[in-house]
Amino acid sequence: MIVSIIGVGLIGGSMALDLRATGFATQLIGVEKDFKTGQKAVQLGLVDQILPLERAIDAADLIILSVSMDAMLHLLPTILDKIQHKMVLDVGSTKEKLLDLVEKHPNRGRFVATHPMAGTEHSGPEAAIPNLFAQKYCVFCDVEASDTDAQETVHRLYKALKMNILYLNRSEHDVHTAYISHISHLTSFALALTVLEKEKDEDKIFELASSGFQSTVRLAKSSPDTWTSIFKQNRDNVLEVLDEHIHILSVFRSLLIKRKFDEFYKMIQQANDIKRILK
Amino acid sequence: MIVSIIGVGLIGGSMALDLRATGFATQLIGVEKDFKTGQKAVQLGLVDQILPLERAIDAADLIILSVSMDAMLHLLPTILDKIQHKMVLDVGSTKEKLLDLVEKHPNRGRFVATHPMAGTEHSGPEAAIPNLFAQKYCVFCDVEASDTDAQETVHRLYKALKMNILYLNRSEHDVHTAYISHISHLTSFALALTVLEKEKDEDKIFELASSGFQSTVRLAKSSPDTWTSIFKQNRDNVLEVLDEHIHILSVFRSLLIKRKFDEFYKMIQQANDIKRILK
Repeated sequence: MIVSIIGVGLIGGSMALDLRATGFATQLIGVEKDFKTGQKAVQLGLVDQILPLERAIDAADLIILSVSMDAMLHLLPTILDKIQHKMVLDVGSTKEKLLDLVEKHPNRGRFVATHPMAGTEHSGPEAAIPNLFAQKYCVFCDVEASDTDAQETVHRLYKALKMNILYLNRSEHDVHTAYISHISHLTSFALALTVLEKEKDEDKIFELASSGFQSTVRLAKSSPDTWTSIFKQNRDNVLEVLDEHIHILSVFRSLLIKRKFDEFYKMIQQANDIKRILK
Repeated sequence: MIVSIIGVGLIGGSMALDLRATGFATQLIGVEKDFKTGQKAVQLGLVDQILPLERAIDAADLIILSVSMDAMLHLLPTILDKIQHKMVLDVGSTKEKLLDLVEKHPNRGRFVATHPMAGTEHSGPEAAIPNLFAQKYCVFCDVEASDTDAQETVHRLYKALKMNILYLNRSEHDVHTAYISHISHLTSFALALTVLEKEKDEDKIFELASSGFQSTVRLAKSSPDTWTSIFKQNRDNVLEVLDEHIHILSVFRSLLIKRKFDEFYKMIQQANDIKRILK
């Protein structure tokens, strides 16, 4: 199967590696708006060649959209306009706006909306790694709106990446990811800014940074392009979770101010409850 | 050298493993207020035997205090009262209150205040692992108040654990650790509580939790005994950093509400600056 990947960065590039290794793709074509990034993706062996969008669509059996959520909103309708039997999937982190947009499109059935829940804090083709997706979960959204053959092919693709499949509708997806993924990125960005603001001695950050701090702040290295567009599109759900998060921090603050350490202790005990769910 | 370890949990137990392996300790004695925890520490081979506090002090050349910060405030003066030539070190996460307390003690010179910046989210003797400290930084606080032989012995101990040594006074230490370690624990506890509060579907937390969420929330599994006493003793510094953190989250919130995504983007770019310091 010939696969064209629009956006050969962390996610698109890592998919390319596994799709080639498993034989799912016999040929891999990349599309990249930045010339050097495209060259890099070929050099690294992620894709066989870089082509302009139109030619990459023409040549492909299956098109993977792995660009920022803002670019997705422009590209998906354009691609659906151009195809009849080919299949398209996206790997975007928000779903409601995208699926609202193409709901009435005559070729909607050729599109399968997916979100492989995997990644690292790095970006670009150099960040692509094999086996990024293995044993992780991939969400299929509103799958009943996709044609059966398209569903089956994309299912087979994610099985080749060794992912577990989960089905959600688009609004459920956006609510759950706000809780589980988007808020932790926002707190990590805020933590990095806090420490950069308050700790002017950079050597001390480097020397004293325990593994705990490093793991909490790791996500703050994530791409501003990717994440601004995610927060833009999932704004309402993120705001709701963020309000709750600020509220809880304010409760901690107030307990510290009043030196109510018994209640402080109980809140930490409650937070420990996350152990039951995440080993 | 005979070493007595008061509190054979994650830190005390991990030190025991390395001190035995490197030959630094020829005999290891544990003190544990909880009988079963003490038994476990012996079963796991962390210490040779558990003794009551007084007998453990009598038998030791060097005493390691690795209990919660609250317990430290009671134990350190008691131990200093009982010794003449023996040495004591603590591994506590805050220093100002503890060092204020013993500043005028006639045996102050026998005490070396240290903070090995290493750990995991687990606790108890079962959490002890070899090589926990290797290549990490250990802070020596107000080292000039310790006798030269005590400084040298404790220095040799941390070199056996393969740690890098850093010198700070007690108030610098508490300010820096508030920035680099304590605030990230607090945000992680708050994040766990946020998600547990908002995400009632526990299966979804498990399935959708990306590695990003898991790394941000990992510290929320940390012990309430350890951490309540740290926040109690470093309250003022933590409050200052927490105020800044809540302020930054509120700026993010306000930019989301006003849909000012250009400024939102710039803040994420600034947060990315942490990459320069932490690879």
